Amino acid sequence: MQLGVCYYPEQWPRAMWADDARRMAELGITHVRIAEFAWSRLEPRAGEFVWEWLDEAIDTLANAGLKLVLGTPTASPPKWLIDAYPEVLPVRADGVRWNFGSRRHYDVSSEIYRRECVRIVTAMAARYGRHPSIVAWQTDNELGCHDTVPSYSDAAVARFHAWLQRHYETIDALNEAWGNVFWSMEYSSFDAIGLPNLTPTDANPIHLLDFRRFVSDEVTSFHREQIEVLRVHAPNADLLHNFMGFFTTFDHYRFAADSAIDVAAWDSYPIARTESIALPEEQKARFARTGHPDVSAFDHDRYRGIGAGRFWVMEQQAGPVNWASWNPVPASGMVRLWAYEAFAHGAELVSYFRWRQCPYAQEQMHSGLNLPNNELSPGGVEVQRVAREIAGSVALSTLAAPAGAATALVFDYETQWMFEIQRHGKGFDYQTLVFDYYEALREIGLDVDIVSSHADFSGYRLVVVPSLAVIDHALVKQIARSDAQWVFGPRSGSKTGAFAIPGDLPPGALQRVLPIQVLEVETLRPMLAPALIIEGVQGSALHWREHVRANGETRVVARFDDAWPAVLTLGNVRYVAGWLSHELHRKVLQTAARDADLETQLLADGLRIRQRGGLTFAFNFGAQAVEAPAPRDAVFVIGGPSLERGDVCIWKEA
Amino acid sequence: MQLGVCYYPEQWPRAMWADDARRMAELGITHVRIAEFAWSRLEPRAGEFVWEWLDEAIDTLANAGLKLVLGTPTASPPKWLIDAYPEVLPVRADGVRWNFGSRRHYDVSSEIYRRECVRIVTAMAARYGRHPSIVAWQTDNELGCHDTVPSYSDAAVARFHAWLQRHYETIDALNEAWGNVFWSMEYSSFDAIGLPNLTPTDANPIHLLDFRRFVSDEVTSFHREQIEVLRVHAPNADLLHNFMGFFTTFDHYRFAADSAIDVAAWDSYPIARTESIALPEEQKARFARTGHPDVSAFDHDRYRGIGAGRFWVMEQQAGPVNWASWNPVPASGMVRLWAYEAFAHGAELVSYFRWRQCPYAQEQMHSGLNLPNNELSPGGVEVQRVAREIAGSVALSTLAAPAGAATALVFDYETQWMFEIQRHGKGFDYQTLVFDYYEALREIGLDVDIVSSHADFSGYRLVVVPSLAVIDHALVKQIARSDAQWVFGPRSGSKTGAFAIPGDLPPGALQRVLPIQVLEVETLRPMLAPALIIEGVQGSALHWREHVRANGETRVVARFDDAWPAVLTLGNVRYVAGWLSHELHRKVLQTAARDADLETQLLADGLRIRQRGGLTFAFNFGAQAVEAPAPRDAVFVIGGPSLERGDVCIWKEA
Amino acid sequence: MQLGVCYYPEQWPRAMWADDARRMAELGITHVRIAEFAWSRLEPRAGEFVWEWLDEAIDTLANAGLKLVLGTPTASPPKWLIDAYPEVLPVRADGVRWNFGSRRHYDVSSEIYRRECVRIVTAMAARYGRHPSIVAWQTDNELGCHDTVPSYSDAAVARFHAWLQRHYETIDALNEAWGNVFWSMEYSSFDAIGLPNLTPTDANPIHLLDFRRFVSDEVTSFHREQIEVLRVHAPNADLLHNFMGFFTTFDHYRFAADSAIDVAAWDSYPIARTESIALPEEQKARFARTGHPDVSAFDHDRYRGIGAGRFWVMEQQAGPVNWASWNPVPASGMVRLWAYEAFAHGAELVSYFRWRQCPYAQEQMHSGLNLPNNELSPGGVEVQRVAREIAGSVALSTLAAPAGAATALVFDYETQWMFEIQRHGKGFDYQTLVFDYYEALREIGLDVDIVSSHADFSGYRLVVVPSLAVIDHALVKQIARSDAQWVFGPRSGSKTGAFAIPGDLPPGALQRVLPIQVLEVETLRPMLAPALIIEGVQGSALHWREHVRANGETRVVARFDDAWPAVLTLGNVRYVAGWLSHELHRKVLQTAARDADLETQLLADGLRIRQRGGLTFAFNFGAQAVEAPAPRDAVFVIGGPSLERGDVCIWKEA
Repeated sequence: MQLGVCYYPEQWPRAMWADDARRMAELGITHVRIAEFAWSRLEPRAGEFVWEWLDEAIDTLANAGLKLVLGTPTASPPKWLIDAYPEVLPVRADGVRWNFGSRRHYDVSSEIYRRECVRIVTAMAARYGRHPSIVAWQTDNELGCHDTVPSYSDAAVARFHAWLQRHYETIDALNEAWGNVFWSMEYSSFDAIGLPNLTPTDANPIHLLDFRRFVSDEVTSFHREQIEVLRVHAPNADLLHNFMGFFTTFDHYRFAADSAIDVAAWDSYPIARTESIALPEEQKARFARTGHPDVSAFDHDRYRGIGAGRFWVMEQQAGPVNWASWNPVPASGMVRLWAYEAFAHGAELVSYFRWRQCPYAQEQMHSGLNLPNNELSPGGVEVQRVAREIAGSVALSTLAAPAGAATALVFDYETQWMFEIQRHGKGFDYQTLVFDYYEALREIGLDVDIVSSHADFSGYRLVVVPSLAVIDHALVKQIARSDAQWVFGPRSGSKTGAFAIPGDLPPGALQRVLPIQVLEVETLRPMLAPALIIEGVQGSALHWREHVRANGETRVVARFDDAWPAVLTLGNVRYVAGWLSHELHRKVLQTAARDADLETQLLADGLRIRQRGGLTFAFNFGAQAVEAPAPRDAVFVIGGPSLERGDVCIWKEA
Repeated sequence: MQLGVCYYPEQWPRAMWADDARRMAELGITHVRIAEFAWSRLEPRAGEFVWEWLDEAIDTLANAGLKLVLGTPTASPPKWLIDAYPEVLPVRADGVRWNFGSRRHYDVSSEIYRRECVRIVTAMAARYGRHPSIVAWQTDNELGCHDTVPSYSDAAVARFHAWLQRHYETIDALNEAWGNVFWSMEYSSFDAIGLPNLTPTDANPIHLLDFRRFVSDEVTSFHREQIEVLRVHAPNADLLHNFMGFFTTFDHYRFAADSAIDVAAWDSYPIARTESIALPEEQKARFARTGHPDVSAFDHDRYRGIGAGRFWVMEQQAGPVNWASWNPVPASGMVRLWAYEAFAHGAELVSYFRWRQCPYAQEQMHSGLNLPNNELSPGGVEVQRVAREIAGSVALSTLAAPAGAATALVFDYETQWMFEIQRHGKGFDYQTLVFDYYEALREIGLDVDIVSSHADFSGYRLVVVPSLAVIDHALVKQIARSDAQWVFGPRSGSKTGAFAIPGDLPPGALQRVLPIQVLEVETLRPMLAPALIIEGVQGSALHWREHVRANGETRVVARFDDAWPAVLTLGNVRYVAGWLSHELHRKVLQTAARDADLETQLLADGLRIRQRGGLTFAFNFGAQAVEAPAPRDAVFVIGGPSLERGDVCIWKEA
Repeated sequence: MQLGVCYYPEQWPRAMWADDARRMAELGITHVRIAEFAWSRLEPRAGEFVWEWLDEAIDTLANAGLKLVLGTPTASPPKWLIDAYPEVLPVRADGVRWNFGSRRHYDVSSEIYRRECVRIVTAMAARYGRHPSIVAWQTDNELGCHDTVPSYSDAAVARFHAWLQRHYETIDALNEAWGNVFWSMEYSSFDAIGLPNLTPTDANPIHLLDFRRFVSDEVTSFHREQIEVLRVHAPNADLLHNFMGFFTTFDHYRFAADSAIDVAAWDSYPIARTESIALPEEQKARFARTGHPDVSAFDHDRYRGIGAGRFWVMEQQAGPVNWASWNPVPASGMVRLWAYEAFAHGAELVSYFRWRQCPYAQEQMHSGLNLPNNELSPGGVEVQRVAREIAGSVALSTLAAPAGAATALVFDYETQWMFEIQRHGKGFDYQTLVFDYYEALREIGLDVDIVSSHADFSGYRLVVVPSLAVIDHALVKQIARSDAQWVFGPRSGSKTGAFAIPGDLPPGALQRVLPIQVLEVETLRPMLAPALIIEGVQGSALHWREHVRANGETRVVARFDDAWPAVLTLGNVRYVAGWLSHELHRKVLQTAARDADLETQLLADGLRIRQRGGLTFAFNFGAQAVEAPAPRDAVFVIGGPSLERGDVCIWKEA
């Protein structure tokens, strides 16, 4: 439970550095991230390195007792590099090339740019890799942000050809796997294949999917090239990348595994994220100053899984930001609440973006721990309080890492890509469906591990799979030998890995444990909502509904009012034949949890709880004061049972 | 009244072909369309033809007693052709060239592509033109789909110049006709004229209109080149093209006339079409599972006219499709209902898309008569029932073609183009206005012929012209000697053929039979709705309203509440001075029908009736059960007078 | 108080010219604008001038006693020029080049086009500059219209480099001023700087701002080149340009000053403007036939200031137009009302667009004083009435120019650009905020001068600054020595001229007269509306709210319900810490006016009044009849105190 901050010494007069370092330490900051975006200062002209200022900045911070996270500056190639190699600029889907003038203006598939990145990272790592105060290295910054991935460039086409050749070996195999006989799409060689942009109507979904797989691999290999350099030169540092919330352009599980990062760090902006994801307007307004109660927790739980237990918040919102459609000031208390929330979910470090608001350039309207006039900001004051509370509490300052949860929720990046490629109905979004299930689990007080579909599920008592496009035999085997309760949502098993409908119909291999067949599916426009009641809870299908036939022993335990099955079950497996309205999802999960012998409770509106190391944390995101569900004899480490809006309490059982 | 199906043998193992053919025949299918989209299999490399598989497929189907419709594969040029001639790819209005990877990636103006099409069609026609089982040929597929027409290519510019020269002869004549003195738009030669895209503000409307006329002619001549080949090699086959619903990019009347097709075939997707046209959200939701009651009938009646009495449904929706914004499952009974509806309006053949759902590629979510596992789909079961019902009824299996209706509704493609070019108010859409009138006519139980403005109107008792931009003297002559009731809507006669306002003001030449002048016109934003009452029916103008002066003997028979005339009449001609709310349109038509001695009845909500060959068909598209308006002594051929949702009955007068 | 008209002799047969001239004079028209857009007729081929037709047109009009305004034809370069120099075509932000085929298809930065413009203007001016009937020259037409400014062309880049070099002298100075250390955006030379388009995420705001400043200067210098020619050849004529309403692409104050125009002319389309600006749908519908009561007055008052007291309406709407989303017919009386409104605000001339509706080309749906059949249009009849009323009234025909108002409202173009570059919240629009304040001032009966922030404020008693991004010392000095009441709105003083946050926090230099600091700001989504009450008026913040600290003696006179200050004051300066709902703005202004000893009255809904030369004009834009607030003994020059919708009255105090 440590606190960090992002700092850009190059943006401030040197005269301020020592005072900044002193004030950071005084505030309770232990970690400082620096140097990402500083390429033009580290190498002002090709091959001319200027290390002196960074040497001094590092020393100044280290001398104040601070630990450093050093960023590689590859998210912002300098102008001289772009002038020398304009083909490094990425290309939009419509064929237009992006310009220099902001950041991330590079093509992840550019061999030239990869070479340049290895060069700058090697130079930095060789100089600073064994510096005792540099405890971690961050690669690049928010890979994939700003829609520069994918790039529809010549470089991408060339590498895509090689990728396809590796995967399919022969063009005949590709034509067969892709079903290119359809619409005469057959190719006579790998080199004849283009990118799937600018087709008059839909491109072949497997063409699109393989391109997305390729792009995910490209991001991963781009990143791994830096990791390989850093491992050599900084053998003792934690290596990480700062991921983003709700971001699915690449497969984070494969990314983490393929490049062996040590920590999954992510950048948490609860209010801006709430504004930007697919939520009803009413909810966006209601949580405009607090963030949706699950919007951060969702990614805390996801990145804890991606990091195999180790995760950091690399950038935490400390006040209003600049980049959402609207940017309100957080409600009083929220900056403190978000810190405890991250810790409750297992964060080792919560690092704020940024030390001081920069009065110029693109992020001048992004707050920091200090105002531009160097006065502590309202958010800074809350961070100060958190630091003091932790320092003042043995229970908090020595808190163990969280144990595994009893409930697993499966998130799958390929499913996201497949259902983006084939929404089939406007507004169908897989991640939103997963989030809806996550919210329901959290509303009934369950701690959740978010895991990949390739996880080991043996420790769980409840496994929730809101959907999973491809169900492989390994998973079916796990289900068959599991005594956990399994809940599958619609479209599960609806595709093969080659983006085709299984020959035995959906849900494909899942039929081995739950004999059902999906005969027809439908997407639902607003106002077309097949109704149903489950155990007294009224609701309807939204977005998606299936016509399912129960085979064998399968029982139908809920039906739509037109008699089509809504929930089917056999043994410990349940299938939900549609995207149900939220209260119905919750009811299905309550029932499944009951069958799994998990205790649940419906928490008050806006209230969330989380266990870690014997402590229970409670958070009030709602507008009204609520009582935390602490036992009578609870010993409060922080706060007490009554929670005003934005309030936190932490207790242990007596 | 025959049934067909679309089949793609190349997409399935040969081992399945014979069984497929047998099952088709058993189901009651008589016609099978094949081979469109198969170019890459017919000619895998330039000039290397592979006929063997198609020979076998044709023989297999023919041996099962099936008749064949052979499609030319020109909607999907293979990759080797595009690699050899990349200039064949069409160009968007913003100058970006489309890519290979889906279908329709060709420029209708490309001389190269036209040559290639003649080559492949000649090869196919030479081989199969006189095959006794091939009863029809279809050219290409859904010409103009996917916005690849128009193409803003160099090829199009060159041919546009030639087109203009043919039409105007001298550049001075063009400058004069176009009014190019305006904004100094004058040209010194035909070659100086560009396409009307990418102008900073509106291009000259006549420039846009002549480009649309040219594009319509391009589609027609592209198609005619294939017809000319087929006529030579397949002299006994019906030649046709499969048109689309609500599609107006080219003038289908001129297309049919200029290339002498034998049958107007069209592709009917009632649910997806209802979702995609301009209807109120409430109606889209209400008819989400049935399609709007008039959405298919409208095109049945239109294509019956275009085909001079002969029309087929080449592709009929048999279950949920993949391409609308939302794709619900049809209500039970609708697949059967749509078949009878098509027959009632005169279809010779209803052919389903497609035999079996293809589990891969772009249309994997499009249902067919069979599920991907080769089990008959719910829609397939309904088709089976239709086939059996027809086979079991002499009245149905020997039904005569429909007689001409007493009511004509004029649809004019040029009017569509002119009012798209000059909507003048957001949301003004001519086809939507025509559809509103059509719906009103059908709600009062009238059978309708949809005809061009150049039709012979002598047989009609009521002629409805919702609008007609250019009114020529020939039409005025027909009116003058007609004793039918004529109803004209707003913007009628508002333009000359050169897209100018008539010198004597709108409605131009119509003034000779109805002396009125339109002084000013206005478009109406939502919430600006001039009110009026016609014979007790309250309503308002929507979208469009005119300030009209009644000259001569013209009488004003309804006024807006600000006193401007709403309906004016003289003799047998009525003029409606605005786009009125639906119930007012219906009231105006009821009155006109009464004056025309046509019996009308206001049908129950969702109920439609249609006469053919002495039978009356009734269809219930509504959510509630209704009684069909059959006389007491009606003899029911199918069903009875009580119609549940999705139900059909057919009777003859005793 | 004179009337004019726009006329295009080249669009009509010569046989009509003399009759047109005679009828204009008879109608009461005194001024006729001609010849803009006529380049292709004046110079049909490069270097071949044809003056004969224009000679005759001018003589014909002059012989009828009409005065002429001659337009330079540079808004519509002919095709031969574009064919010779295609690089003259402007380039969109996405890199696509616009085409010939409408108008304004030129790049304001093209040296070639500038040379061509000087050439044609010199030729025209040399021939007609001293013609006694040509009393004014108009340059080009509506500079900046149709989004062709800015152009992202090579020509623009080159001139931008020169502009930057003039302003920053060294690249180091630019890098420092722009804060290019941020995201490694540093440049090694001016030539390395690109235009700020096509960046993957936000470009540097100062990069965007300097580009907008450059573009504004480009428009100005383009225009000035024509003025310099005209001054030489037409020394006695008024030189002007016809500006647009609500148009802010260039700084009109600097434009007017830098090129010394004699008159600020503008083109007034109240109904289309009301449709196109950011107003609630309800207001757009309510004023669809009258225009919003303040929409024209706002620009009358703004252009009177830009013209240093002299302004003309060069194009006045006389009926329905063609270019808004919807184009209703004006309510009866409005064409007359708009004329008196313009005169009341000080217009010297109201000139109508256009003499006769052109039946062909792009503007065929734009009405004029005559219908296409040469019959006076309804609007023409109203203009005739105005002409007769003025001619019949000594008070009107000899009316003096308006005196300066007691209330100044500051409008600042750079603030518009800065807040467009950095809206920070969707829907924040500076001009809309200014308009909201303007409306409130007009609703309480105040006459308003709209002035630049560099005006001399010594004559005013109330100065309203809805916002002003950069507050300079000169303004603070004026405030300090002023005894007027000053009202500042949110974001005032929030930026430096280099687009950075002031080091002492906003409102920057304003703190010297009002010691407050803005700690945090927030943008507000719909449904997030901090509430407050001011003197009994309930409302909320919309769009924007600030957390302000009152320093020193500053008093908080209103608070939001979460206790943050809403209105702060010290001495004669008020600061409003948010965008308040309209009634609250009005209340704040009423209070400030009271403190300034200005009499106010809340006018009836839709009623507006204006003083000029001892007369009071009253206008009813509302749907209901109202009483004008004339004293009992008022002497009515036009009309009487009861005003129906669209009615006008004018009185003097007895």
